[in-house]
Amino acid sequence: MTTDAETWRAQVLTILPELFPGPLAASLSGRALVEGRWSLAAIDIRDFATDVHRSVDDTPAGGGPGMVMRADILGAALDHAAERLAGVPTIYLSPRGTPLTQARVRALAEGPGVTVLCGRFEGVDERVLEARDVEEVSIGDYVLSGGEIAAMVLIDAVVRLLPGVVGDAGSLREESFEQGLLEYPHYTRPRDWEGRAIPEVLLSGDHGRIADWRRAEAERLTRERRPDLWERRKKG
Amino acid sequence: MTTDAETWRAQVLTILPELFPGPLAASLSGRALVEGRWSLAAIDIRDFATDVHRSVDDTPAGGGPGMVMRADILGAALDHAAERLAGVPTIYLSPRGTPLTQARVRALAEGPGVTVLCGRFEGVDERVLEARDVEEVSIGDYVLSGGEIAAMVLIDAVVRLLPGVVGDAGSLREESFEQGLLEYPHYTRPRDWEGRAIPEVLLSGDHGRIADWRRAEAERLTRERRPDLWERRKKG
Repeated sequence: MTTDAETWRAQVLTILPELFPGPLAASLSGRALVEGRWSLAAIDIRDFATDVHRSVDDTPAGGGPGMVMRADILGAALDHAAERLAGVPTIYLSPRGTPLTQARVRALAEGPGVTVLCGRFEGVDERVLEARDVEEVSIGDYVLSGGEIAAMVLIDAVVRLLPGVVGDAGSLREESFEQGLLEYPHYTRPRDWEGRAIPEVLLSGDHGRIADWRRAEAERLTRERRPDLWERRKKG
Repeated sequence: MTTDAETWRAQVLTILPELFPGPLAASLSGRALVEGRWSLAAIDIRDFATDVHRSVDDTPAGGGPGMVMRADILGAALDHAAERLAGVPTIYLSPRGTPLTQARVRALAEGPGVTVLCGRFEGVDERVLEARDVEEVSIGDYVLSGGEIAAMVLIDAVVRLLPGVVGDAGSLREESFEQGLLEYPHYTRPRDWEGRAIPEVLLSGDHGRIADWRRAEAERLTRERRPDLWERRKKG
């Protein structure tokens, strides 16, 4: 359906490669995967271990709970990834990272692909992040048991922006964050439900009034729920 | 291993129930699921459809691209969920929601469970959110193709905080957001790697100096990377 040059390529470094594609094989992203609009390689970090137990972690320098993923093993895994797929950013998903935004997602979708490093345990040896020019990105201000589900979030967000994945491109233009606003409320049949009616303006057939109402609702929701976004939008 | 009363219960309303438990069956959360520390029910929203095609959506009132999930069908699904499991919050995952924080995750972990509603298409009819006291929560400022992977994020974050899931509770006390700070950098063997050494203080054996260094690094990282968190922390 698409040529290889047009295929967006994701590779994920993980100790749980069996989790991929997982939910990414379903629905929109799954169809796009079958159609060749993107590709996914799950690379097992344990393949770069140097002992018979295939261990990838060791105790933290300075003491403390848990285990830390080793710089030498991750470095070798990242070098392999860079050979497989050059010229794409390498992202380590971690709550310490730069918060992921729709703008960053869009920039990734416009590029050739991404390499995602998934941490487990306490995290990874800091030196590998410095030595391999790894971008630390956070999907939100909470802590997960590992980077794998976060990688699925990142990839799902990107893939739906690839050309042809969402059938009606109009859907993408009006959604949250596209104009620095949260999306307006949606309604559909039935017209009356449990005594609650669809707002009259939406049934008016007056496209100008409908567009104005939606815009006003998007602005109201953004002001009420996300004053931070609202302020940033006025400045930007 | 745990009694039923101690089991944290998650139920997910979705048109893709086959995606669950998916990645939540692996690793920490998977082990905890087998041990009965939490339970998961995936409820198919299509079971509440009223036509032979099991359709759950219809065109948006007022026009526009895409489809909207119907209030009557979602209302019936949510009523079923409330009967199955009373007294838990109902969360709809949407980019328009209140940003998820580790504090909200912790509060959920201290409660009996959660009902999560996963949207698809353009979203859900606004009336069902109002009528069923649904809390709208966002995992971050980006858009996904549906709520399913976001539900996995939410559940994974909660489950790792349940008693006994993370083996060493010390891991939880020092991680990002626990004191309003990002976590300090980690290092492990080898001591020297590609000309990069583990910071000397971590090899000193002086627990006081190590704790001071880690604290200072956590503060530096938070100031540099997340001035918003740093300001909020000073105020709080």
